[in-house]
Amino acid sequence: MNFKLMARINAYILVLESAFMIIPMFISVIGDERRSAWGFFFAILVTFGVGAVLWLATRNAQNRLRAREGMVCTGVSWILLSLFGALPFWFSRQIPRYLDAVFETVSGFTTTGASILNDVEAMSRGCLFWRSFTHWIGGMGILVFMLAVIPLSGKNEGFTLHLMRAESPGPSVGKIVPKMRETAKILYLIYIGLTALNVLFLIAGKMPLLDALCTAFGTAGTGGFGVKADSMAGYSAYLQTVTTVFMALFGVNFSCYYLLLRKDWKSVLKDEELRLYLAIILLSALCITVNILPQSDSLYDAWHHAAFTVSSIITTTGFATKDFNQWPTFSKAVILTLMFCGACAGSTGGGIKVSRVLLLFKGLRRNIHQILHPQKVQTIRSNGRVISESILTNTNAYLSAYALIVILSFIAVSLDSRFSIESNFSAVMCCFNNIGPGLDQVGPTSNFYLCSGLTKIVLIVDMLLGRLEIFPILVLFSRSTWKKLN
Amino acid sequence: MNFKLMARINAYILVLESAFMIIPMFISVIGDERRSAWGFFFAILVTFGVGAVLWLATRNAQNRLRAREGMVCTGVSWILLSLFGALPFWFSRQIPRYLDAVFETVSGFTTTGASILNDVEAMSRGCLFWRSFTHWIGGMGILVFMLAVIPLSGKNEGFTLHLMRAESPGPSVGKIVPKMRETAKILYLIYIGLTALNVLFLIAGKMPLLDALCTAFGTAGTGGFGVKADSMAGYSAYLQTVTTVFMALFGVNFSCYYLLLRKDWKSVLKDEELRLYLAIILLSALCITVNILPQSDSLYDAWHHAAFTVSSIITTTGFATKDFNQWPTFSKAVILTLMFCGACAGSTGGGIKVSRVLLLFKGLRRNIHQILHPQKVQTIRSNGRVISESILTNTNAYLSAYALIVILSFIAVSLDSRFSIESNFSAVMCCFNNIGPGLDQVGPTSNFYLCSGLTKIVLIVDMLLGRLEIFPILVLFSRSTWKKLN
Repeated sequence: MNFKLMARINAYILVLESAFMIIPMFISVIGDERRSAWGFFFAILVTFGVGAVLWLATRNAQNRLRAREGMVCTGVSWILLSLFGALPFWFSRQIPRYLDAVFETVSGFTTTGASILNDVEAMSRGCLFWRSFTHWIGGMGILVFMLAVIPLSGKNEGFTLHLMRAESPGPSVGKIVPKMRETAKILYLIYIGLTALNVLFLIAGKMPLLDALCTAFGTAGTGGFGVKADSMAGYSAYLQTVTTVFMALFGVNFSCYYLLLRKDWKSVLKDEELRLYLAIILLSALCITVNILPQSDSLYDAWHHAAFTVSSIITTTGFATKDFNQWPTFSKAVILTLMFCGACAGSTGGGIKVSRVLLLFKGLRRNIHQILHPQKVQTIRSNGRVISESILTNTNAYLSAYALIVILSFIAVSLDSRFSIESNFSAVMCCFNNIGPGLDQVGPTSNFYLCSGLTKIVLIVDMLLGRLEIFPILVLFSRSTWKKLN
Repeated sequence: MNFKLMARINAYILVLESAFMIIPMFISVIGDERRSAWGFFFAILVTFGVGAVLWLATRNAQNRLRAREGMVCTGVSWILLSLFGALPFWFSRQIPRYLDAVFETVSGFTTTGASILNDVEAMSRGCLFWRSFTHWIGGMGILVFMLAVIPLSGKNEGFTLHLMRAESPGPSVGKIVPKMRETAKILYLIYIGLTALNVLFLIAGKMPLLDALCTAFGTAGTGGFGVKADSMAGYSAYLQTVTTVFMALFGVNFSCYYLLLRKDWKSVLKDEELRLYLAIILLSALCITVNILPQSDSLYDAWHHAAFTVSSIITTTGFATKDFNQWPTFSKAVILTLMFCGACAGSTGGGIKVSRVLLLFKGLRRNIHQILHPQKVQTIRSNGRVISESILTNTNAYLSAYALIVILSFIAVSLDSRFSIESNFSAVMCCFNNIGPGLDQVGPTSNFYLCSGLTKIVLIVDMLLGRLEIFPILVLFSRSTWKKLN
């Protein structure tokens, strides 16, 4: 293990994080929120301090990183990021218990959006900004950001590749340009551009600037932390529609946007995952519209809320305009299914991902063909290209791990007997898929404050597992990783 | 496709089924249940008639069968078996609607145990016997029975193998002796022996003969149809304990019993699946005992009901002595998890099967090792032998298909808006895993009578998919199966 380099990467991460905290500190200073301002100040001191010490101690690190080291490093980075990111909430007493602060921060960075806050509107503006900003940072990934801004990699491409692979969602991470560092830069530029566009659209609808920034961060990271107690229900239909569209846009594989910038319309239109993703959104929204029509004011009203909810759930954002617990069983069943599915690979959304679902189906279809024609060797194609068997094996392993984690978490969370089976199961599903609010006692009208300490720790781990797509965290805690320290 | 042979196999199945119906007819005749007796008589006439005509029409069939034909044939057999097996209920007016009768029969043959009967104790003794007898026939499989008693196969081993593979549960069907026909015979002899032993133990506890037979059939097939409205709750602790033990015994891979008969203790003790299966039962029962202790009369009482419930659920039998809906959340979570898991491969139980769970875990572990050591080629072993990659691929495809079917069924069933999300989901899970009663509106204190026609049809398909482990039915309805009729 190249511990020195791993420590150095984490040093950069902490320094970057402390830099990010400066913005909310100024917001608190301007807003005359004295406690929050000091909270951020001390948090910056501690985070920068630890980062700087680490950086100084690892000056002569070699720039070589293997795949497993990339995974371990990514897992550790995200844990450190969360532990230090929770400090402002704790230092400023906005969240009195450190475990709660960590829960809120992990929920932010992993773009889950599950909250322990009883009254979000009572929070200081600085902390609200930081809370939403964690969504934005976590959405595209802090390591990707680091790779984009810090000229670390030098000649070693594998280095960058391993880190990006570990942090980016989807069954296979493609380079959109030959150099990984350039890829990271392009991704972040598109991300910033789309977020800025979202903010402009929201401001055009007369949303206050801070609200617009926080909402855009929540949308861009597909996180779902809002600044209002009723999430998006109180905003105008225009603002809700803008959010519907942008949530769906941030669920698209970002390489599609790069292709669009290069005017390669044909590849985008032919992209199998994108087509399936849009088809699922359209079909689900139509089904729900018909289903909720009897209890809606008008056809437009039904369509409006159906589209918003579908867009919010499939991208695992978690904003709400209506309490869908009140909808008929069929609509709820569709929504639950969308939760599993998730958005496109290479987007900021969580869940299993449309491309993985596609691969699983194709694998299944091949298996049936194999039964029918045992002699034929059959390959699986995606967008015309042959998918390697190792990606298929990884996808299957992902599904097994997914099921295993859901079951173990569910049992652990059930030790807290005050909550119903539905609450517990939906809490695990919503944290692990990075969606946010669950059903029943952890539903949109409630929060995770009452959960026991054990439950919170399990859910924190689930959120991290979900965001990093299981393997970096599994590898981090695997015995064989640490057996031969070489 | 060798349609002639497939038709001939089905002719045998129907003739065998009509022969099975003679026993309940006599029970009805002796019990002076006139309507039921005539019902069985006409059902036998029709079933035997159709079977005989088919048999005469297919005299010159060639004894060659390919894998896919074996699957299609098995799927068709089970559908015919159910359609004709429902006739006695319908003809005797014990179940007035044919769809309901088919539901009850499919639930019987697939050893599910989900019922549409509002008052089971009002049913005639002949029909009660037939209902439980379907469990026994379906448990080990009608095709296996046919292979054991009818000298069909001649020289062609593949023929028998394909049919047994399609009907028997588990990731890989092993021959326990070199000839498949002998294997089928041995399996049925063990099955009959264990069932007889079970009946003797029940009679020793002063259970009436018919009750003892029906209970033993329900236990042996891991079905769960009882003859009392309160399932097993009204019986003595001794009878409950006997059932606990026998349910667990029928969840063991039958090849273990063959090894025991050959005094090969060592192989049995070393069997990975058996060890994990027993460990799961013991651990789950202990956890639940501790968890329900505060609401139990004594430690023994808690252990007694915990052991019964665990044994009933993991083997997917579905008998009940306590309403576990009243237990704490943790116990319910453990029970829900056991539902997915299921019993051993090569037993009469349903669910995913312990050996498949084991394979999925081993596949996952290999994947993590592959990340850590990308150069090494690693194999997966079970009981010391290397598992072929095709079995692993099949197991993964099974898991994908399992998830797909659960989701699609869940959405279809949810169209009936009178039922809760929990009822719908548990109905699908309990029918697909061949367990029986679900939770809430389809729970142990209720039944499936009120479900809509569409829901019943979906659940019927789910029960068949679950019993035949998906692929025979999927292949039956796959377009490519019928594309090239050769």
